Amino acid sequence: MTSQANFRYVSLADEIQASIMKGIFTPGEKLPSLRNLHNQLGLSISTVHQAYIELEKRGKVEAREKSGFYVKVLNENPLCRPAAEKGIAKPCRVVVNDLAETIIKDLQCDDILQLGAAIPSKELMPLKQLSRIMKSLPAKILQDHIANYDLCAGNLDFREELSKRMLGFAGSITSKDIITTNGCLEAVTLCLRAVADPGDAILVESPVFHCFLQLIEDLNLYVIEIPGCPDEGIDPETFKKAISSNKIKACLLNSNFQNPLGSVMPEENKEKIILIAEKYNIPIIEDDIYGDLFFGEKRPTTFKSMDKTGMVLYCSSFSKAIAPGLRTGWTVPGVFKNTVIRMKLNTSISSPGINQAVVARFLKTGAFDRHLRQLRNRLKTQASALAIAISKYFPADTRITFPRGGMFIWVVLNEKINSMEIYQEACQEKISILPGLICSSSDRYKNCLRINCGLKWTHRLEQGIRKLGQIVNRHALCNS
Amino acid sequence: MTSQANFRYVSLADEIQASIMKGIFTPGEKLPSLRNLHNQLGLSISTVHQAYIELEKRGKVEAREKSGFYVKVLNENPLCRPAAEKGIAKPCRVVVNDLAETIIKDLQCDDILQLGAAIPSKELMPLKQLSRIMKSLPAKILQDHIANYDLCAGNLDFREELSKRMLGFAGSITSKDIITTNGCLEAVTLCLRAVADPGDAILVESPVFHCFLQLIEDLNLYVIEIPGCPDEGIDPETFKKAISSNKIKACLLNSNFQNPLGSVMPEENKEKIILIAEKYNIPIIEDDIYGDLFFGEKRPTTFKSMDKTGMVLYCSSFSKAIAPGLRTGWTVPGVFKNTVIRMKLNTSISSPGINQAVVARFLKTGAFDRHLRQLRNRLKTQASALAIAISKYFPADTRITFPRGGMFIWVVLNEKINSMEIYQEACQEKISILPGLICSSSDRYKNCLRINCGLKWTHRLEQGIRKLGQIVNRHALCNS
Repeated sequence: MTSQANFRYVSLADEIQASIMKGIFTPGEKLPSLRNLHNQLGLSISTVHQAYIELEKRGKVEAREKSGFYVKVLNENPLCRPAAEKGIAKPCRVVVNDLAETIIKDLQCDDILQLGAAIPSKELMPLKQLSRIMKSLPAKILQDHIANYDLCAGNLDFREELSKRMLGFAGSITSKDIITTNGCLEAVTLCLRAVADPGDAILVESPVFHCFLQLIEDLNLYVIEIPGCPDEGIDPETFKKAISSNKIKACLLNSNFQNPLGSVMPEENKEKIILIAEKYNIPIIEDDIYGDLFFGEKRPTTFKSMDKTGMVLYCSSFSKAIAPGLRTGWTVPGVFKNTVIRMKLNTSISSPGINQAVVARFLKTGAFDRHLRQLRNRLKTQASALAIAISKYFPADTRITFPRGGMFIWVVLNEKINSMEIYQEACQEKISILPGLICSSSDRYKNCLRINCGLKWTHRLEQGIRKLGQIVNRHALCNS
Repeated sequence: MTSQANFRYVSLADEIQASIMKGIFTPGEKLPSLRNLHNQLGLSISTVHQAYIELEKRGKVEAREKSGFYVKVLNENPLCRPAAEKGIAKPCRVVVNDLAETIIKDLQCDDILQLGAAIPSKELMPLKQLSRIMKSLPAKILQDHIANYDLCAGNLDFREELSKRMLGFAGSITSKDIITTNGCLEAVTLCLRAVADPGDAILVESPVFHCFLQLIEDLNLYVIEIPGCPDEGIDPETFKKAISSNKIKACLLNSNFQNPLGSVMPEENKEKIILIAEKYNIPIIEDDIYGDLFFGEKRPTTFKSMDKTGMVLYCSSFSKAIAPGLRTGWTVPGVFKNTVIRMKLNTSISSPGINQAVVARFLKTGAFDRHLRQLRNRLKTQASALAIAISKYFPADTRITFPRGGMFIWVVLNEKINSMEIYQEACQEKISILPGLICSSSDRYKNCLRINCGLKWTHRLEQGIRKLGQIVNRHALCNS
């Protein structure tokens, strides 16, 4: 190969890479065929091929057998990650509900671009299968579900399927260990009420999932926020310090792909955290709702799988991984089972059985695993495309997390920018975001915002990010 | 007519009446035709007819055009009513949950005769219509329900139908005033949490619906029990005294066909109660779940219909009047709406939309009124048959309430008899009852029990009452 040809394939690779980084080619998109580029650029097929091989080495594209070259779904963050925060944990009262009310009202506007929500696009849900299963339920079974209060612990078929599914990431759980709930949030509510009384302090990872804060406020609890690192979540040493220097009644943690940071605690850290919590006899309420949505090779593990004393109250739901409208959540509350089931009985007797039966049948078909594979790929692609678009349209000093699973990108703007103002202006443009102010009892995230990666990557979505970028850029100019 | 003929028709009437009182002919049952009795007894058709006319005058049978004579569904209690209790109202802690847990476990046994529950027989529910509606939901609508979190306030169609239905007994309620819930108990839970904090005292009618007590215990509230009269519920004077001499945060009342007494407060008393509550600025949480199940001519009215200040938090559900498995409850929380909706949002986001949509469609067809008419007749007949059977099989000093609607007969045994022992022995015989101990924070109803009138009157049910009577008689003998 001559040196000129050598130069040519490298420069072509550079050009294509630049286009990828600018979002001209989006993650998962098929690149032009060898023959096309050969015709278009007048380069030899071999040079074009060399360029693709070079890009493959650089980790930017991937070859798919008999199909061609595709933009690789990114694993790496194109922008720098925010540094882990250092804070001193103190119990605080929470006042976020008024803000939450405003945000939710805005979210219900027609035609708003739901970047502030935590929902996947409809296209990513197995709606046809679910509605087919519901429609084909034998009349007798349907009528039984309508006629009877289901067991307070929940539909038995559903619990049996859940116990099979949890094997491998949550330990050996039998259907008797499980209580089904109206979504994950009811599971968390019942567990919190089972372990804590008004005035008690609850430890959480910060920035915090805003619904946790809203609930903590409603239940008259205090919150202790431990800053999370976008990669690894909360640090066991910091955790230990907080636990030993405060009277903490329970921990409430997203174990995998934390909302909003996307952090996943490494297995060894989870083990350390469990040991510390056990030593201080503090229950861990574990919300694993995003655990199935991993972008890597392997589903991350859970606190529950390491739980030897029954002090972990595992909570989850299919609202993110299947569909939210069926409200199929559950909890495995360990030694608190009797208290949780009593709380459930006394607040609502039981949840509707039909929805649980439908999801049980869906799980039984084996279609869930196929669906999950597809969903994970799509979410990963969408998250990559969003990350690239943010890098393209937002000011250069913007920092984002690139999640390894789950549904969010956490955006840290220049600290002079107030994301509540961005939120308000974005609302005018029919774009919702989640302002960082609602993710803490303090105002420490007032320059941050959370973006939903659940939406299908479309021109409208890209235009939305562009508009958001324009708003942020305007504020950056005003503040400079 | 000769005096002998005169004598004969009276003695025949006496005989038939005795058979009715013994339960040989049950309320609603068709009596033998004139021709049959004429053939069977060798009496003239005219004498048999005279006897039936006599029984009609006595209020025991009713003629139905072109059909014959039927045992009248009783409006009167065959036994004497328990006297209204006189008690001094004081706030108390409640400890009933352990007992509740045992009772619920027993209720879940296979093949148990559910006299302790509060459910109608399956045959009384419009199951075919509901399952047909569910199966015929257009796929697109079904998929929309599966895909989306419904509005936190609940499905709009359902709320619109509810607002139409409530006209006439709950005032002019718009869909915006309504929040749907997972059954009535969730409505009550949210309302209680919205108006009261741990340590506050809640006024209730006594004997108390046990789930209210369980919930009050869970929420760390105190209870103040005002004894109810089986006819008229709580007395406004007693109510006023309790309110003026205690710090009461809210009232929680079954306004119609109270569980377990079956009492209905007369309209003028409701008005007095409302005025007193308004004067002291005390919210009334009104549970009207049995309001549609009146045995008389007219649906009784509600506190909500008299509510001028928005201090009434109306709660209800279709668990008794349609079917419990769909979990379609709702609340109209007046001025507390924002707090209630926030509590709902933060505990479970929203309830499943499909079930609400199905009930909305059922209401829209107009079939509900036809269904209700039938259900009310059946419940009335069943309650009468149960009352007669109790009078036949229980000791003579047994007193019962005969309800004017709703689903229960409250049985007061000789005060030496402990209904917990009856409960335990009945469980051995596969019969569940609700022991009175669970209906108060005190043990004042320990000789009482509640019987479910929702079950279809069958031979098995009569045998169950007979067995119960035998158990009670045995205890009466031991104690005499």
